[in-house]
Amino acid sequence: MATVTLRAFVCSFSIIFLLKPNGISCQQFSITFQQPTDCGVESYFDISSLSCVKCGPNQVNRLACECQTGFRVLVSNGASIMCQQCPDANQGVTQDGYGCISCPGSVGDNGKCQCPKGSVLVEREWNGNPLNEAQCEACTATEPAFSAPDTTGNRCVRCEDSFINSSQSCVCGTSNIQAGGMCFPPNSLPASVASNVIFGQLALSVTSLWFSSFMYSSAAACLVNFYTNAQVSCQSLGNMCVMNMHSSSTINNDACGLYNTVYRILSLICDSRRTNLPWLYYGDQLGLASRILQNEPLPVGFSFKGTQKLRAAVYSVRGEFLRWESVGGGNLQLCPDTPTRQQSAFMFGTAYKQSCVLSVSELLNGYPEPVFYDVFLVIQKPQEDKRLHAVPLLNINQQFNGQFTNQGSSMNNWYLTRRLMLVDTLSGREKSLSSSPKVIRVASNIKIGFQLVTNTQKGQVYPPLMTVTYSDILVTDPTTQTVTVSFSLEYTMDQEEARVKTDIALGVLGGMAVVHSLLKTASWKRRIASPLIDLQTIMKFLVFYAGDLANVFFIITVGTGLYWLIFFKAQLFVSVLLPLPAQEERFVVYVGCAFALKTVQFLHKLFVQLSVDIFFIDWERPRGKASKHVEGSGEAKSQASPVSIWRTYFVANEWNEIQTIRKINPTFQVIAVLFFLEVVGFSNLALRDPSSDLHPSPEAYTPPYSLILRYGVASAMWLCIGLIQITFFKVIHERFVEDKIRQFVDLCSISNISVLLLSHRCFGYYIHGRSVHGHADTNMDEMNTNLKREAENLCGQRGLLPNSDTQTFQISITNRLRAQYDRIIEPINWRSGPSRLVDASANPCEQSTKAYHTMNRFLGSVIDHAHREMDYIVKDKLLFERIIGMEFIEPLDKSIFYNDDSHSFADVLFYGNEAVLLIFDTLFFCVVDLGSQNFILGAKNDTDTSVVHSRFKSLL
Amino acid sequence: MATVTLRAFVCSFSIIFLLKPNGISCQQFSITFQQPTDCGVESYFDISSLSCVKCGPNQVNRLACECQTGFRVLVSNGASIMCQQCPDANQGVTQDGYGCISCPGSVGDNGKCQCPKGSVLVEREWNGNPLNEAQCEACTATEPAFSAPDTTGNRCVRCEDSFINSSQSCVCGTSNIQAGGMCFPPNSLPASVASNVIFGQLALSVTSLWFSSFMYSSAAACLVNFYTNAQVSCQSLGNMCVMNMHSSSTINNDACGLYNTVYRILSLICDSRRTNLPWLYYGDQLGLASRILQNEPLPVGFSFKGTQKLRAAVYSVRGEFLRWESVGGGNLQLCPDTPTRQQSAFMFGTAYKQSCVLSVSELLNGYPEPVFYDVFLVIQKPQEDKRLHAVPLLNINQQFNGQFTNQGSSMNNWYLTRRLMLVDTLSGREKSLSSSPKVIRVASNIKIGFQLVTNTQKGQVYPPLMTVTYSDILVTDPTTQTVTVSFSLEYTMDQEEARVKTDIALGVLGGMAVVHSLLKTASWKRRIASPLIDLQTIMKFLVFYAGDLANVFFIITVGTGLYWLIFFKAQLFVSVLLPLPAQEERFVVYVGCAFALKTVQFLHKLFVQLSVDIFFIDWERPRGKASKHVEGSGEAKSQASPVSIWRTYFVANEWNEIQTIRKINPTFQVIAVLFFLEVVGFSNLALRDPSSDLHPSPEAYTPPYSLILRYGVASAMWLCIGLIQITFFKVIHERFVEDKIRQFVDLCSISNISVLLLSHRCFGYYIHGRSVHGHADTNMDEMNTNLKREAENLCGQRGLLPNSDTQTFQISITNRLRAQYDRIIEPINWRSGPSRLVDASANPCEQSTKAYHTMNRFLGSVIDHAHREMDYIVKDKLLFERIIGMEFIEPLDKSIFYNDDSHSFADVLFYGNEAVLLIFDTLFFCVVDLGSQNFILGAKNDTDTSVVHSRFKSLL
Repeated sequence: MATVTLRAFVCSFSIIFLLKPNGISCQQFSITFQQPTDCGVESYFDISSLSCVKCGPNQVNRLACECQTGFRVLVSNGASIMCQQCPDANQGVTQDGYGCISCPGSVGDNGKCQCPKGSVLVEREWNGNPLNEAQCEACTATEPAFSAPDTTGNRCVRCEDSFINSSQSCVCGTSNIQAGGMCFPPNSLPASVASNVIFGQLALSVTSLWFSSFMYSSAAACLVNFYTNAQVSCQSLGNMCVMNMHSSSTINNDACGLYNTVYRILSLICDSRRTNLPWLYYGDQLGLASRILQNEPLPVGFSFKGTQKLRAAVYSVRGEFLRWESVGGGNLQLCPDTPTRQQSAFMFGTAYKQSCVLSVSELLNGYPEPVFYDVFLVIQKPQEDKRLHAVPLLNINQQFNGQFTNQGSSMNNWYLTRRLMLVDTLSGREKSLSSSPKVIRVASNIKIGFQLVTNTQKGQVYPPLMTVTYSDILVTDPTTQTVTVSFSLEYTMDQEEARVKTDIALGVLGGMAVVHSLLKTASWKRRIASPLIDLQTIMKFLVFYAGDLANVFFIITVGTGLYWLIFFKAQLFVSVLLPLPAQEERFVVYVGCAFALKTVQFLHKLFVQLSVDIFFIDWERPRGKASKHVEGSGEAKSQASPVSIWRTYFVANEWNEIQTIRKINPTFQVIAVLFFLEVVGFSNLALRDPSSDLHPSPEAYTPPYSLILRYGVASAMWLCIGLIQITFFKVIHERFVEDKIRQFVDLCSISNISVLLLSHRCFGYYIHGRSVHGHADTNMDEMNTNLKREAENLCGQRGLLPNSDTQTFQISITNRLRAQYDRIIEPINWRSGPSRLVDASANPCEQSTKAYHTMNRFLGSVIDHAHREMDYIVKDKLLFERIIGMEFIEPLDKSIFYNDDSHSFADVLFYGNEAVLLIFDTLFFCVVDLGSQNFILGAKNDTDTSVVHSRFKSLL
Repeated sequence: MATVTLRAFVCSFSIIFLLKPNGISCQQFSITFQQPTDCGVESYFDISSLSCVKCGPNQVNRLACECQTGFRVLVSNGASIMCQQCPDANQGVTQDGYGCISCPGSVGDNGKCQCPKGSVLVEREWNGNPLNEAQCEACTATEPAFSAPDTTGNRCVRCEDSFINSSQSCVCGTSNIQAGGMCFPPNSLPASVASNVIFGQLALSVTSLWFSSFMYSSAAACLVNFYTNAQVSCQSLGNMCVMNMHSSSTINNDACGLYNTVYRILSLICDSRRTNLPWLYYGDQLGLASRILQNEPLPVGFSFKGTQKLRAAVYSVRGEFLRWESVGGGNLQLCPDTPTRQQSAFMFGTAYKQSCVLSVSELLNGYPEPVFYDVFLVIQKPQEDKRLHAVPLLNINQQFNGQFTNQGSSMNNWYLTRRLMLVDTLSGREKSLSSSPKVIRVASNIKIGFQLVTNTQKGQVYPPLMTVTYSDILVTDPTTQTVTVSFSLEYTMDQEEARVKTDIALGVLGGMAVVHSLLKTASWKRRIASPLIDLQTIMKFLVFYAGDLANVFFIITVGTGLYWLIFFKAQLFVSVLLPLPAQEERFVVYVGCAFALKTVQFLHKLFVQLSVDIFFIDWERPRGKASKHVEGSGEAKSQASPVSIWRTYFVANEWNEIQTIRKINPTFQVIAVLFFLEVVGFSNLALRDPSSDLHPSPEAYTPPYSLILRYGVASAMWLCIGLIQITFFKVIHERFVEDKIRQFVDLCSISNISVLLLSHRCFGYYIHGRSVHGHADTNMDEMNTNLKREAENLCGQRGLLPNSDTQTFQISITNRLRAQYDRIIEPINWRSGPSRLVDASANPCEQSTKAYHTMNRFLGSVIDHAHREMDYIVKDKLLFERIIGMEFIEPLDKSIFYNDDSHSFADVLFYGNEAVLLIFDTLFFCVVDLGSQNFILGAKNDTDTSVVHSRFKSLL
């Protein structure tokens, strides 16, 4: 290859650096990529130039260049060595590689002298002087020497205790059993062990080299009396049982079978050494799990300010105790993350879930051997020592006689255990402990669950439960294989009480709703003057009931949301914990019901608003009968000068405009709610953690949202801003800017037009607009004069009754009056809808104009008490009548006009139904939000209501 | 303590488990927390019960119970051992601890025999039989033995090569220098080395044990000829130079000084071993850095689909080559994170920044020794071997003769280097290599920067530059101390060309804006009929210019945003890269200018709209003069029946309502934009990565936003939705639902009222509303008849001219007409503003009513051509006149009425200024968004404009 190697550049540049010449030619600073494994047998990897370089003659590469087998180092001078073959065939290279020596026996494959088993090779005297010929010395195995060759094979040293103890020699006797580098006397353990590991998920049984190498020796060393490393062996045996998923059966020669066998034997002879065995099982009685988990709370209370500390005793796979570890520094959390976020898992009350995808090759590199964790909860009472409470473990993969007993939800069938591992790449190795395993096992799902004691005030919890699920992965292509792991903490409490309370509230309020709906139906029946209970009545009742029931659901859901929001977030010592996502289903159903029923009510309101009968009574009379020329016809005749219709147009136009006036501005509402939720950060109150921080640091862990809290926050925010807007509108805007409803009444007075609204057959509203000046159809001079006179109190009052100001009335009319009304209006009704009465249609219709004039005259005369048989009386409404919204007196002979200073005719407009609209908007927003988990999408769809509103406006 | 230990539970439960009794008493499964360090000298830590247990007699705890000094193991039976004191004072315990032996010399502190230096202790014969008395054998140091005691002190073995090579013996001769366990002949290195490490940030110099132990030996072994580990020593010396921040000066006995000295010596004798020295420096010539970084692009192109791969050669602190590592598996990224996110750092074009806070104690545990990285970029051409291009390193902490030369921004002063470390906890250790260091050094900021070749189409880049900043931390309290580390990748290109192009566009468009503003000013001068160029003219010009300039800035900024959006996101082979945040400043200034100037224009438009002169001309004449009774006075006199003012009220009311009609619905606009940006996910297009994915996975890395892209997305989205709304409004709504402007003109016709609008002194609009029926002030019958007649084409056309339909005109009036107008209106002007003409004030004012009537008569007669000296002509406007918005003919003798079918009188309403409002809204949204980096906040504030709009409506 023609490229210049890096080596050359280093040289030239460094010279330049030191000698500072004037010119430099810039070339690419690049090398060819070579790895140590790329170098052949006769090259070594030069670590400076990062390339393969050929070794000297007679040298081979074993990490560095060394002499070939049978060659000694002649000169070791600088970077290079020189090698020389040993002259004699019987000579071997010395251990240090620098000399040749005659061998007493044969020359080994490595070119060095070889001694028989049990012998050591001696090449030098004690003082270091080389011997002419090497010697093989057999180590004395018996007393008092008890010696055997050490691992290098160069010295005789005291042999393993177990050999001496078992056979009083360094040779394990034939009656003894040699296993795992130790010698055991005959014992009661099964002679052959089942060294296979069962990977349940893959339905695969792997003969594990680790198990076959060390299982028997661990069990035996744990059982038999005289081994100093008995404790470690026992732990090692326990670890194998954990690697086999704690699974036990009637087989007594697998890992857990041996564990149990050893335990049974030690217990029968009541040997204290049974305590050397690690604690793996709680017991297998029926219901033991629930007694352990739910009988007795922990002796300390938990608060939201503190963190609960977990501590784990960590053991190596060989059974050595490694250290105590504080859980939380990422030891049980396989997913890498910043320390801050990982630590927040252990803030009490924070629903924590961390999940990620890990590459199998990384696991293989990062976890060559499993480590085992015995997890404890730290209990620190004031003025006492730290105590550790053992955290029980529910191993989902555990089998008991072939059954996955822990996978069911019934706590009675659970077998609780202890000891946990994270990644086991060891037990799946079949051929060699350094080769790649066939199967690995990963704790893919670790969950720690805390349950609060019911009705606690001090944050008492039951012992936590740790649930672990392992995944078995058949290793085929480690670089592309992945495994999803997660770690979560869950805090629960018994939600039964809350459920019962909700049910009670639902029952009570539901009953009240029935009563209220019956009352409304009765009122409606009275107002339509129909005594019959027909299908329509039942339908009407159902619609009223839908509205009331929607309110009940709304109150309950908002109440629940606020309850959790306030009680959960505000508590210091924990007394309530949020329902789990699965427990929120009922709540979501309630919200859905509220929304659906409210929609029915809203549509009904719309329909009612569309079907109100309106008539504008023009009080204006022609200004005297005067003969004048009628234009166009040319003839002169006596004719009343026409009363202009423009005032009626004006009033009708204004009526149209106030149809959709609302006390809240939808744009402002949406934007303000979004602002407070998303920008000010109130949405962070809905997170499943005890923090009330509106702006958690972006580095901090973000728990998932709680649906209930989210609903609580969103609805409270929407209602609050809605109420603030309404208050502002009523107190500030209507008083100081403009009150369109009052303006409309004023306009009626000024334009000399009364408005009759019949929302029901025999019930409605009347706005008395008779001008105090007699005429309104006049020019600007007179209008100004009139207004000035009124301002100076020179004319009468505007009220219907003399000397009264009351212009607005609720009216109950008699059947007779209504019948007459219907008779007059009949010719119009077949042509267009009831509210099209004032429609200035381009098609002149004699009949309707005639009907209009008739109606105008008729209604005017009724108001003027001109019809004796259709007379009316004016009275005040009783307070109770106002409250229940129903009139007690039926208008039999005379119609009744109830004084109504509060402009309740707005009830047929959006203006008077703000509550329904606000609740509907709130529910709409919340439903869309819950559906999308996104406030903005919620706002988006809520606009649709305001679009509906504005469309509706154009409909009218 | 009265608590029961875990040990007891394990036992009882396990028995239960095995023997299955019926009852169980649940107690707390808790233990007292004890650590191995808590156990005293005479207790050991029982790993099963996790508590301290007392050792047997004569035993002490060293990890496990062992016999006291001077005691031998008598019986080793099971878990316990028994110890016995050696009977004789002269006897020591044997090496294996099981026997006593007479010592040839003294008994050591450990109770075992001790031999003098250079001797080995022999306790057994070669065959393992114990000697009665131990022997001390002195190792023969000279040829041929060359032996010295090994590390255990039990055997004589061949000593270190350097001793043999230097002094032909295992004793380093007096003329030689012994250092770091090696022996060196006299050489030209400085005899004493400066073994202090300078922590520049703390202004602290620490005498490093590592440096004092190994610096001289590394340098000497690298320099002197005959050491096989010369390569490793050279690397180790280089590593020390790196640990000293590559800092060099005239001192030649610090780490980098020795490095340079060795290099110089080897170069002078032109020894090939100089290549053993690692490559640390590029050179120190002026401008070398820019030549390396910007002269020659890499030979391959980069695309957005591929990742660029970095590979690092990793060396241990001792100089051994450890392995090749792919950069990206978290090796240079100190912050823990999921593999997916960490890997996304190396997607070409993704602006990556990862930052976190790490605890010093974790760093101390995780990085006991630094490792060193030589980073290369992998260059893979098709059909070629992988090549590695060395990535130059800019060490910000490097000092050159005491100057921090690399901290400046001038590339000419930079000294590029190689080799990087992450965490150095070694060089700060003073007393012992296992104690806690005094100072640690962390690579707190690593940045890799790629620069694109200008005008490349194939994604060619210059060699990347790696910038590293180290932080020095004085270790005081490791558990609470933290350090912020970050890792980032930056992609830049030369933005000069874009800047020049923007400047050119700004110049050209700015010039056009001047011309346009001049034209508008001229038109305005013509319309106010004032030939003088006074201060007002200049102010007006400036205001016009503000508006035009705002448009220019708006076009340029939106264009720039869209340019980057399209060209950056759509390219496959990279040809452009985004400006860095620092380079976005100009852009932000432009946006700010656009917004400020647009605000000026908007306020000016508001002011103009508020100051339009409006007069409603009532064509209605009294229906003949008839004598009638005047109410109230009682006397009869001949009087014209009054013309009702209600039609005028109606029209004025409607005029008021169309003031704020817009072609877009602000609520819908805000919500739709937010919906598309946040819910549909268009905002993700503004991320600084090449992906066009609208919904990146939540597990993926999220790069920061680019201001320019964000502006581009937001403004494009706002404009698009605005234009769609306008189109919908014009095409669908106005045609099929309602066209309020046309309705207003119709209303004028029906109500027999014309509207005269004077937006300028001598220019305005005229809506001809004379009823074709002569009278409009009539009752419903006649209205219906009239409408029916008109529908059946039985009456004339509505236009001003006979047989024309044109009702709307732009008018240029003569000075004389305007003077007359002003004379009539004078009595009103002092009382209220010009637009309050139709205000039905409660205070009657004779003068104003009189003026109204006079004006009505006067204007009516002018329209009727009754004033010869104030006559007018009707004509069409020229196309060019329309385009430039200016009339060519000055109305000297006669006023000119230009036919205007397009209802351009809407120009004095919001309706006709939709473009200004839309651009203002867009800018408002974008400015608030850029300010807050939050679209929702942007929407919030934008509502304020719509609030302004609605407030403005109530003002009118």
